[in-house]
Amino acid sequence: MHETICAPSTPAGGAIGIIRVSGPQAIAFADRIFTSPSGQPLSLAKGQTLHFGTLYDAKGNIIDEVLLSLFRSPHSYTGEDSVEISCHGSRFIMNAIMERLIQIGCRQAQPGEYTQRAFLNGKLDLSQAEAVADLIAANSRASHRTAMSQLRGHFSSELSQLREQLLKLTSLLELELDFSEHEDLEFADRSELLQLAIAINDHLSKLLHSFRTGQVIKHGIPVAIIGKTNVGKSTLLNQLLHDERAIVSDIHGTTRDVIEDTTDINGITFRFIDTAGIRQTTDTVESLGIERTFKKIVEASIILWVIDAQPTTEEISEIKQLTKDKSLIIVQNKIDKDDNRFAISSHPSSVPIISISAKLGTGIPNLESAIYTAAHLDDWQENTTIVTHARHYEALLRAQESLSRVLDGLHQHLYSDLLAEDLRITLSHLGEITGGTITADETLQNIFKNFCVGK
Amino acid sequence: MHETICAPSTPAGGAIGIIRVSGPQAIAFADRIFTSPSGQPLSLAKGQTLHFGTLYDAKGNIIDEVLLSLFRSPHSYTGEDSVEISCHGSRFIMNAIMERLIQIGCRQAQPGEYTQRAFLNGKLDLSQAEAVADLIAANSRASHRTAMSQLRGHFSSELSQLREQLLKLTSLLELELDFSEHEDLEFADRSELLQLAIAINDHLSKLLHSFRTGQVIKHGIPVAIIGKTNVGKSTLLNQLLHDERAIVSDIHGTTRDVIEDTTDINGITFRFIDTAGIRQTTDTVESLGIERTFKKIVEASIILWVIDAQPTTEEISEIKQLTKDKSLIIVQNKIDKDDNRFAISSHPSSVPIISISAKLGTGIPNLESAIYTAAHLDDWQENTTIVTHARHYEALLRAQESLSRVLDGLHQHLYSDLLAEDLRITLSHLGEITGGTITADETLQNIFKNFCVGK
Repeated sequence: MHETICAPSTPAGGAIGIIRVSGPQAIAFADRIFTSPSGQPLSLAKGQTLHFGTLYDAKGNIIDEVLLSLFRSPHSYTGEDSVEISCHGSRFIMNAIMERLIQIGCRQAQPGEYTQRAFLNGKLDLSQAEAVADLIAANSRASHRTAMSQLRGHFSSELSQLREQLLKLTSLLELELDFSEHEDLEFADRSELLQLAIAINDHLSKLLHSFRTGQVIKHGIPVAIIGKTNVGKSTLLNQLLHDERAIVSDIHGTTRDVIEDTTDINGITFRFIDTAGIRQTTDTVESLGIERTFKKIVEASIILWVIDAQPTTEEISEIKQLTKDKSLIIVQNKIDKDDNRFAISSHPSSVPIISISAKLGTGIPNLESAIYTAAHLDDWQENTTIVTHARHYEALLRAQESLSRVLDGLHQHLYSDLLAEDLRITLSHLGEITGGTITADETLQNIFKNFCVGK
Repeated sequence: MHETICAPSTPAGGAIGIIRVSGPQAIAFADRIFTSPSGQPLSLAKGQTLHFGTLYDAKGNIIDEVLLSLFRSPHSYTGEDSVEISCHGSRFIMNAIMERLIQIGCRQAQPGEYTQRAFLNGKLDLSQAEAVADLIAANSRASHRTAMSQLRGHFSSELSQLREQLLKLTSLLELELDFSEHEDLEFADRSELLQLAIAINDHLSKLLHSFRTGQVIKHGIPVAIIGKTNVGKSTLLNQLLHDERAIVSDIHGTTRDVIEDTTDINGITFRFIDTAGIRQTTDTVESLGIERTFKKIVEASIILWVIDAQPTTEEISEIKQLTKDKSLIIVQNKIDKDDNRFAISSHPSSVPIISISAKLGTGIPNLESAIYTAAHLDDWQENTTIVTHARHYEALLRAQESLSRVLDGLHQHLYSDLLAEDLRITLSHLGEITGGTITADETLQNIFKNFCVGK
């Protein structure tokens, strides 16, 4: 923390590039390489101000004309003195500025080091810090909303409520202890304690339960589209993907995975696996046209089985085998053709059948809502807390384990002092999430190593 | 110019994303979607200030916590009221902010539109505006230096010197005209006029001549490495490329062209064509190992012919054929082997022979300076003006054409009033470069359309 660190915070190749400098010498270092037209040094400038001027290399040559944002401790992202250099976004210039900063004594920042410093300086708790990386990676409304809620401290404040309840439980137990000592009564009425412990346990269960949804929000739900050739799988896929207008174009260009593509339904990302794109050969499962796509089906949570004719009993039993642990939706395509409006006989009960015309787009909204329903996201509401990190899930699980020992103890009428230790452990596990009880450097490094550079 | 425009100025995918808003309503629009903790509207804030706060979408949901830079006309890049929104660099967030801005009445900016407005508001002349795009694209010391010099107005001030000299010439001609009318003397002494016109012409020639160097600086010099298999072409290429440490990593990842790679020698980019990487088959030119690489040789300006044994007379005459309009350098490799220190007989005179050991790196600096010499960049010095744009070259050429008519006229003792028109045309062509005499909207659009979005 006594070192001043620097890193590019934007990719090169845009109109503007940002290089961030933070630490005790940030302003002094900037003064060594930067000159404003007025000639006034930055060391005399107030925080939260903007300065136009010129950056020089070691030989006195101009690297760039830049705009410099000055922040004074503690009013900055990291809580330290900070400078953000807004330069022309060329890789050459960004490299030259980084080289110059390192020459005069800056150290290149580790991934996530700015956010780590913000945490260490008390600007954010640990779960909020983790939300910063989530926010940057967010690519759907749900993942954005979840990360933003966590960044805004909603999860933290829920945890602090739980903490208060646990402290209340502790003090009630202490009171009982006092009471029992003085009055020589072994047990007080424990119904209030039990009620409180059960409420905390229920809350923990709800949070733990939300982790499945959290994973889905983060990683998307894999959906495989299967069916014979020429039933319209590719046309359906195109309908489901209905290319969203991307205003922010990817300057570098992305390599599009030809087999998977994603779309959002109600803010949730669904990853469609285009089995139609995979070459098909004759095989035992040839009738369903899923040869070579078997592995993809195994990965999927939801299967769309596209048909354009009455399936045989054999096909239906085959599909039952393939999809037994998955949500299956039968998609009856080509309803624009008159002779195709057949009723499906002997299909697995409880499996929804959606009639569509992939060609005309008929029935696509129905299919989308069937897909959303099949994802079982009942606990995803925009203002509920969703646990998205495995680290948080594990800490909540450990907290519940020790709390269940407290519950057992209360039921078994154990002495209060025997329960106090488990309550302390529960509190400690909850504290890990926001970072209050984390002391090991290694844990912090593990958390921040997956951040991008410059954040 | 009455519209307020918005565009992302950084690629998505970094820690930070910048969205730029410029125009008469920039601050009012920002006030509609932004709230600072103090609740004070931006409309009351001074220019050159930074504001932390929250951006909201149409439903009142938080899009992001952002840092906002406020600029008041004329103290901004465009000269207009401007706002730069520094958000988390996620594509989702950047899209959401752009959508919101467009919803409330911003128009998405065209490529280069900010710089175009800066030009129209007199913040930059046209050649400086063009230098902005060059600066962003600059990837070598020479291209960076050239663009920076142009941005700083060095070319513009050279043009204004030329303009002054042309105006002096014009007034001398007018003086002569007055003189001849009053005194009934047909011709005054024209030696001063001639001298001045010749000096201007020489200056134009020098600028025109620099265009070749300008092209080289911008696009790099193609160098082909040819030779039989196993003479060490790949090892030599690796020595020449000596991977430069790139501090600014490419967040999106780049697809590396396996056949071409570049390195800088004295700040100039050389593009090495690794003909060694191309599969070789037996053919008439098999002895040189250049089958299938012939086209690459045609593109190259410099050929490195790598040999590890005495070439035959046949091979030498073949190479003469191939490289007649190119700079040839013979590279005698493997001098670390004792028996390989042969003298090359009957080689084309005036062709440099450089002895190296690609394996050990011996002789590489000698080879690099031979390559630099072969590029004939005599007029590239760090503080001379280099013409880098075809548009400028053309205007200079037209200016010289009309000036040459003036020179002819002076020699042929034409009347002054016949020369004045050509002088006026010369001035007008020079004015096109800095934009003073450009009125057509189409010309401007052509200039700015190749800019990146957000600049």
